[in-house]
Amino acid sequence: MSFKEPTIAWIGTGVMGAPMCGHLADSVGAVRVFNRTKSKAQPLLDQGAVWCESPAEAAAGADLVFTIVGFPTDVRAVYFGKQGILTTLKQGAVCVDFTTTSPSLAMEIDEAAKQRGAAAVDAPVSGGDVGARKAQLSIMVGGDAAAVDRVHPLLQKLGKNIVHQGPAGAGQHTKMCNQIVIAGTMIGVCESLLYATKAGLDLETMLSSISKGAAGCWTLDNLAPRIVKRNFEPGFAIDHFIKDMGIALAEAARMRLALPGLSLVHQLYVAAAAQGEGSSGTQALMRALERLAGQTADA
Amino acid sequence: MSFKEPTIAWIGTGVMGAPMCGHLADSVGAVRVFNRTKSKAQPLLDQGAVWCESPAEAAAGADLVFTIVGFPTDVRAVYFGKQGILTTLKQGAVCVDFTTTSPSLAMEIDEAAKQRGAAAVDAPVSGGDVGARKAQLSIMVGGDAAAVDRVHPLLQKLGKNIVHQGPAGAGQHTKMCNQIVIAGTMIGVCESLLYATKAGLDLETMLSSISKGAAGCWTLDNLAPRIVKRNFEPGFAIDHFIKDMGIALAEAARMRLALPGLSLVHQLYVAAAAQGEGSSGTQALMRALERLAGQTADA
Amino acid sequence: MSFKEPTIAWIGTGVMGAPMCGHLADSVGAVRVFNRTKSKAQPLLDQGAVWCESPAEAAAGADLVFTIVGFPTDVRAVYFGKQGILTTLKQGAVCVDFTTTSPSLAMEIDEAAKQRGAAAVDAPVSGGDVGARKAQLSIMVGGDAAAVDRVHPLLQKLGKNIVHQGPAGAGQHTKMCNQIVIAGTMIGVCESLLYATKAGLDLETMLSSISKGAAGCWTLDNLAPRIVKRNFEPGFAIDHFIKDMGIALAEAARMRLALPGLSLVHQLYVAAAAQGEGSSGTQALMRALERLAGQTADA
Amino acid sequence: MSFKEPTIAWIGTGVMGAPMCGHLADSVGAVRVFNRTKSKAQPLLDQGAVWCESPAEAAAGADLVFTIVGFPTDVRAVYFGKQGILTTLKQGAVCVDFTTTSPSLAMEIDEAAKQRGAAAVDAPVSGGDVGARKAQLSIMVGGDAAAVDRVHPLLQKLGKNIVHQGPAGAGQHTKMCNQIVIAGTMIGVCESLLYATKAGLDLETMLSSISKGAAGCWTLDNLAPRIVKRNFEPGFAIDHFIKDMGIALAEAARMRLALPGLSLVHQLYVAAAAQGEGSSGTQALMRALERLAGQTADA
Ligand SMILES: NC(=O)C1=CN([C@@H]2O[C@H](COP(=O)(O)OP(=O)(O)OC[C@H]3O[C@@H](n4cnc5c(N)ncnc54)[C@H](OP(=O)(O)O)[C@@H]3O)[C@@H](O)[C@H]2O)C=CC1
Ligand SMILES: NC(=O)C1=CN([C@@H]2O[C@H](COP(=O)(O)OP(=O)(O)OC[C@H]3O[C@@H](n4cnc5c(N)ncnc54)[C@H](OP(=O)(O)O)[C@@H]3O)[C@@H](O)[C@H]2O)C=CC1
Ligand SMILES: NC(=O)C1=CN([C@@H]2O[C@H](COP(=O)(O)OP(=O)(O)OC[C@H]3O[C@@H](n4cnc5c(N)ncnc54)[C@H](OP(=O)(O)O)[C@@H]3O)[C@@H](O)[C@H]2O)C=CC1
Repeated sequence: MSFKEPTIAWIGTGVMGAPMCGHLADSVGAVRVFNRTKSKAQPLLDQGAVWCESPAEAAAGADLVFTIVGFPTDVRAVYFGKQGILTTLKQGAVCVDFTTTSPSLAMEIDEAAKQRGAAAVDAPVSGGDVGARKAQLSIMVGGDAAAVDRVHPLLQKLGKNIVHQGPAGAGQHTKMCNQIVIAGTMIGVCESLLYATKAGLDLETMLSSISKGAAGCWTLDNLAPRIVKRNFEPGFAIDHFIKDMGIALAEAARMRLALPGLSLVHQLYVAAAAQGEGSSGTQALMRALERLAGQTADA
Repeated sequence: MSFKEPTIAWIGTGVMGAPMCGHLADSVGAVRVFNRTKSKAQPLLDQGAVWCESPAEAAAGADLVFTIVGFPTDVRAVYFGKQGILTTLKQGAVCVDFTTTSPSLAMEIDEAAKQRGAAAVDAPVSGGDVGARKAQLSIMVGGDAAAVDRVHPLLQKLGKNIVHQGPAGAGQHTKMCNQIVIAGTMIGVCESLLYATKAGLDLETMLSSISKGAAGCWTLDNLAPRIVKRNFEPGFAIDHFIKDMGIALAEAARMRLALPGLSLVHQLYVAAAAQGEGSSGTQALMRALERLAGQTADA
Repeated sequence: MSFKEPTIAWIGTGVMGAPMCGHLADSVGAVRVFNRTKSKAQPLLDQGAVWCESPAEAAAGADLVFTIVGFPTDVRAVYFGKQGILTTLKQGAVCVDFTTTSPSLAMEIDEAAKQRGAAAVDAPVSGGDVGARKAQLSIMVGGDAAAVDRVHPLLQKLGKNIVHQGPAGAGQHTKMCNQIVIAGTMIGVCESLLYATKAGLDLETMLSSISKGAAGCWTLDNLAPRIVKRNFEPGFAIDHFIKDMGIALAEAARMRLALPGLSLVHQLYVAAAAQGEGSSGTQALMRALERLAGQTADA
Repeated sequence: MSFKEPTIAWIGTGVMGAPMCGHLADSVGAVRVFNRTKSKAQPLLDQGAVWCESPAEAAAGADLVFTIVGFPTDVRAVYFGKQGILTTLKQGAVCVDFTTTSPSLAMEIDEAAKQRGAAAVDAPVSGGDVGARKAQLSIMVGGDAAAVDRVHPLLQKLGKNIVHQGPAGAGQHTKMCNQIVIAGTMIGVCESLLYATKAGLDLETMLSSISKGAAGCWTLDNLAPRIVKRNFEPGFAIDHFIKDMGIALAEAARMRLALPGLSLVHQLYVAAAAQGEGSSGTQALMRALERLAGQTADA
């Protein structure tokens, strides 16, 4: 990698993928791009990226292939589909999946890549669209050390806290750990705000008492104020969070691990989605609890 | 209060009460003290506090009466018992209960105090024994403004973040909001660590990836490392936390409010206590989940 | 009891108490009656019962005192109040409480009765208002054998399946066991019907497949058809069921026993009550689940 | 079907499949059989069944193809695998899947069968191995009316309560409704027995009070006595029940339906499996709850 820039392919130019791909293009030059909806790749194409008609076409001849799509089924399609990456991935290439997806699927991709003499890295991120734009993502990395070392310089263009967690799947498992904690903080914060409402407290005054101590958390600092202002815009959308919790629960069941807390929160989010909040931010769990309570926190 | 120091009574000199009472004694001079077990008051007596044989005796003639005992039944005994505060509380006095107890009981005390021409303030605290010793408690205050104003200068000797939350009971309700959030963070953090264990991750490496982002919380920063080191010493004991969650759930049921998340965590803590962890720190929820999982995180 | 009829007092002439008292009056003659609302006792008075102005007055001189009021606080008032039974209960008397109430309270009454040289029996019932009218109640009996033997002939006027379960409180504990099973069947049946609705099944056809096999239960036979017909009339009212589950959970917490299933169902019923279903029948749990699902089963 | 017996293929000769296939063979003569482990088909072969080397070979030329394997992945392999039924299924044939599997998968099979000019029926059963041997299964049927009518005479050789529930998938959905109710009765009965144990009741005496009334259910009549005798043999194995609940929850999440009760029970069963009870009968949920309680019901 010292005297020649690698050829790079990028699949998935949505909310996260577009700015991330932009950072790489800035530093390594022209990137081969594919996205389901071409228009979302247009700004990148305008800056010199090369359009490809399929993941297979993008991956053909590439040294490094980056993907960040939506759901595990999308990942499966992009890698294992008829026009998927694994039909053309060249020997010695490394593919990196940034999508939050199933650890088992990450291991499956790793196996398949190895059978072609290539390698796979799973590298889910956290930090949201803001982190993606500012290149300040936290990146949780799984895969063989050699492959991880090879892509590390490029990951540094995208994030700050880049940690190699272990073999293929370990990045995804770590992201699941992250989401499990968030599920707990979300239910705690929403139930707390609802209790406060029923008890007749002033929500902001209540928050001023509790947010600096042992109850302190990112959710309390960042999402509770939005709930108080009845702002349920995403941030991170409920449908994506349901996907993530579903993955964690499926992995846990596979590993024979009971997670009663996560399971309950997952159900309540499914209820929120059933009530039409799938595209709202995760803080809209509040609304599902309010419907259960027959009362809203802004009454 | 300008030209004459008030006469102060203090009931309850346990882990929290002893250092708190010490701070007041430092600034206002001799305090009239009662505690169920006299020996725990001895250090204060050695510094000049005056021993009384009952809450009633302590409160007799006092301008301000402070209490911090264990459970709501203790509070009830101290105020409403045959030798209770309300048998001697003088007109114009203010009593302040720092115990984490039932908001309904706080309102009951307030009513009873008013019938004697006195006033009551509920002022539960957070910050633990460290906060008590350093006079850095967060204090959540409920009661009539006049009474709260009157005791405010003394509360400032004990804590930093002192917020008047509303009428009698509002301090306790705010403390319940605090505990509800903590219940969520505890289940999230413990299930996350357990998942990580089953998935074969290195726990500290995993924590280094997730603790600075959206999963960030006091519990992750302070209790997760203890769990990793298999340190289940209290901090805050499970039996007390079960009491607090029980109060919150009882109040919620009274207000007709469903809190499914808190309710589940409460049950899991009851299980932990059944397994002998009642005196362990709240992070020992981990152990109950490990027994459910048939696996420990230090395996 | 062979040559002289005992003097009988009866407190509580509501939905259950009125017909039960009527059966006793039919067989043993005039009964001394008290109820909070006198009008509800009028039909009994018209048939020869003697009105008393308080539980104390009714119990004065009685050999046997029967009570069936609503909530544990009512039981406490009726026994321990200023005009309560225990102020006048004569030596050698037996009091029988049919109310579904706290096992701990039953033990407390037993102790207090013994201190007066009397005895107490707890005898909660099941079978509903129909069972009460038809004298076909199931009666779960706790108390000392001698006291239980003494009242057994009269219990036989009220029910069929009369079982002595053990010492004071054992009747109430058995009733709790009954309610715990019902909580499980209720959530199972309601979630099943909701799933069927979402899946587009015809509810009655679905029920015809499942009701005779391993899913078979009283709730499926008796309440599922009411839900299908959108009949949410009580039967047994949600507010009473919430009381019962609250008692069971409080006893369980006291005994350090986690009951995660009961706890969840309790919360969902609290939600139902918050949504205005407190006086509906227990099958109206369906409505709380429907609100969660954003869909009704009759859509 | 009037003048010529249909050619029949049967795949899956396990606990359920072997006796069911035997009944058909008795009435229609030689059956073409495949099973993963040939030895389990030997008794049928001894009675004249014809061994085939794959599902494809069995289905080739068959008029009716019956399957009853274990898990959805097995069903997928048997139908869609390289040697699967759908590679040889002839025009006009009908395949019937008795496996308890995913409704979505049943619809997928139906689509694929139609593309070959054939038809598919989903027909999960209940009644256990006893019902299979006695030909007294309850059969929940989904599929097009013509196909269902065609196989109905043969289903009558296997069961009694045969109900056509609707289009493809409706049979499986109905079976899910059945399992959802059972999940509720299981948690109710186990928690009730555990409560009774902690409360010091005699379990059989307790059961004699509650089993005839509103708490009455198949689980109480059939499994509670086994628990009391510490008999945790299957009946229906926990691993299969976890599979079924997992299918129901996945379908529910897909339909955006929250089932908090089922979800909790599912988690507790996962815990039971983690503790080594996967092959025990479903009543061994008791053991997971006992571990949580730190106490066994036979203490
Ligand atoms: N948003 C956030 O804050 C965070 C998101 N994540 C995770 O990152 C991933 C991406 O999220 P986000 O960017 O918000 O989602 P988006 O839906 O905005 O982006 C996904 C992109 O992938 C494309 N895509 C999906 N399937 C295919 C396919 N088969 N072939 C080609 N392109 C495909 C989509 O195409 P099309 O344009 O046609 O829809 C879309 O442009 C998710 O897994 C999410 O959970 C992680 C951390 C934070
Ligand atoms: N209904 C049912 O299907 C079943 C009920 N039960 C249990 O039986 C008990 C009674 O139920 P039910 O009859 O339906 O309830 P009701 O409310 O109809 O009857 C309760 C009666 O008690 C009276 N009462 C309450 N407090 C006092 C008091 N302090 N002094 C005198 N009388 C008092 C009430 O008076 P007032 O008339 O003024 O309200 C009322 O008449 C409950 O604990 C219930 O859980 C058990 C099995 C089935
Ligand atoms: N047992 C019960 O009480 C009830 C069971 N059911 C359901 O019926 C189904 C069958 O249960 P049961 O008979 O107990 O289970 P078993 O495990 O005893 O039988 C399943 C059979 O299917 C065979 N099989 C699995 N995969 C394949 C494959 N790819 N190709 C060929 N054969 C295969 C197995 O082969 P091998 O011999 O190699 O393992 C085994 O003989 C399950 O879905 C269960 O949930 C429904 C109601 C009651």
